Amino acid sequence: MLAAVEAGGTKFVCAVGDDDFKILDKISFSTTYPEETLQRIFDFFDTCGNLKAIGIGSFGPIDINKDSKTYGYITSTPKTNWRNFNFLGAMKRHYDIPIGWTTDVNAACLGEYEVGSASDNSSCLYLTVGTGIGGGAILNGKIVEGFGHTEMGHIIIRNHPEDDFEGVCPFHKNCLEGLAAGPSIEKRYGIKAQNLDADHKVWRMIAYYLAQALMNYTLILRPEKIILGGGVMNQARMIDLVREEFSLLLANYVETPDLDSYIVTPSLGDHAAIVGGLILAQRIL
Amino acid sequence: MLAAVEAGGTKFVCAVGDDDFKILDKISFSTTYPEETLQRIFDFFDTCGNLKAIGIGSFGPIDINKDSKTYGYITSTPKTNWRNFNFLGAMKRHYDIPIGWTTDVNAACLGEYEVGSASDNSSCLYLTVGTGIGGGAILNGKIVEGFGHTEMGHIIIRNHPEDDFEGVCPFHKNCLEGLAAGPSIEKRYGIKAQNLDADHKVWRMIAYYLAQALMNYTLILRPEKIILGGGVMNQARMIDLVREEFSLLLANYVETPDLDSYIVTPSLGDHAAIVGGLILAQRIL
Repeated sequence: MLAAVEAGGTKFVCAVGDDDFKILDKISFSTTYPEETLQRIFDFFDTCGNLKAIGIGSFGPIDINKDSKTYGYITSTPKTNWRNFNFLGAMKRHYDIPIGWTTDVNAACLGEYEVGSASDNSSCLYLTVGTGIGGGAILNGKIVEGFGHTEMGHIIIRNHPEDDFEGVCPFHKNCLEGLAAGPSIEKRYGIKAQNLDADHKVWRMIAYYLAQALMNYTLILRPEKIILGGGVMNQARMIDLVREEFSLLLANYVETPDLDSYIVTPSLGDHAAIVGGLILAQRIL
Repeated sequence: MLAAVEAGGTKFVCAVGDDDFKILDKISFSTTYPEETLQRIFDFFDTCGNLKAIGIGSFGPIDINKDSKTYGYITSTPKTNWRNFNFLGAMKRHYDIPIGWTTDVNAACLGEYEVGSASDNSSCLYLTVGTGIGGGAILNGKIVEGFGHTEMGHIIIRNHPEDDFEGVCPFHKNCLEGLAAGPSIEKRYGIKAQNLDADHKVWRMIAYYLAQALMNYTLILRPEKIILGGGVMNQARMIDLVREEFSLLLANYVETPDLDSYIVTPSLGDHAAIVGGLILAQRIL
């Protein structure tokens, strides 16, 4: 059996699945302290029978450099309990089997790439837009990473002409996440994003910001498909608005697939990362 | 013997080299009409003896999709004589040997990756900043490409607070190339960039624009090294200014190598692309 952990900042999901990545059993619980949370992972998997490998997709930033002394650690996260926590090490001490290790968004990207909306493509990019913005990409079947994992949510974009908001990112103020993630919407208007009308002008602004990001990803990576997940994308018409703004910005400069098949929502829905974890487990075998 | 063609918009370079990518003979001439230019390529190589393979790094945009009907073509270039020209096809009709095909900046990136300043790295990015801005990247030894080749010079960045210039890119106005390539400097001040004083305020602005681009490349690709070439980088202190602005923008958000070894100039100088062409020739064998 394959095992997967989706380690999110607010919620953990653990699952076991078969070789076709069908989920056989699953549990989810709130993220608390590392020791307590790890114990809940162990309690679940220890009842699941014989595990062949585990794939972990974790919130970050994390250390993915195998030559590093802190490989497998969650590093400089704002969640102080988890800062510099040797997550992979703690898992390895309990399970003497291969364990794959990547970010939650890379895991989601892998899920969509192998069995989701990009299963016919050789490259794709996954972006989640919620309380934060994070992305992962795959080119020729391999996760895009180098000196470290990607941090696509913090790229520089420009303010909308009608938006003088200074941004909420503690590092960069008005980077993509600072202007377009859920908390930026709440900070602007004093109410939660999901309580704003569907025809509120903010949605067009958010679409403009996401379209800028998608334009930059397109020019820098040339993925065959871009998959947009996360709470903000649940807003009615958001995907259409993003396609419209993207088309205006790109101005036909490079060829892309037809936008209806280029910019899509995840076909695995909320399961992309946990299924990706199962795939990561199989890849590590 | 290995052969290479660096096909630039204003100048072609042809060379032959040995298996260690040492250039044995080389010629360069102005880019004119396709037929005339091709004839000069043939005239040179036909005197060079037995060629094993050719690597071409071409100005673009070009079609690199092997499944496409126009694979090997220069496509929508503003140089009308070359638009929709089947460059690779013309070469293949004359030479019945393996021919590699990529962009000029990808070839330069390959040169620096294999035998230049990134020869100890497993990933790098090359950016040229001259009359235009173009870039190429390599991750895990492979050129980054997907639905097509990258077009990193046209990403969206934001204007410097003291620069209200509207930009010169015919597609996107104030994209990176529209704000930071040589012609943008000339358009702002009415004199050529190289005739402006080294302490002119424009250099700090250009550095700010390049630093934004490098920040976005860093977050989206995480290369181990970024190599900056092209005429604008010949400006004294430019590389130092870029490092300074980059450091301010990134705000230590992700780890990079020490900036003096992360952001560098090409150790192959003007030979990066032609040497990369020889490497491409060997790779295709």
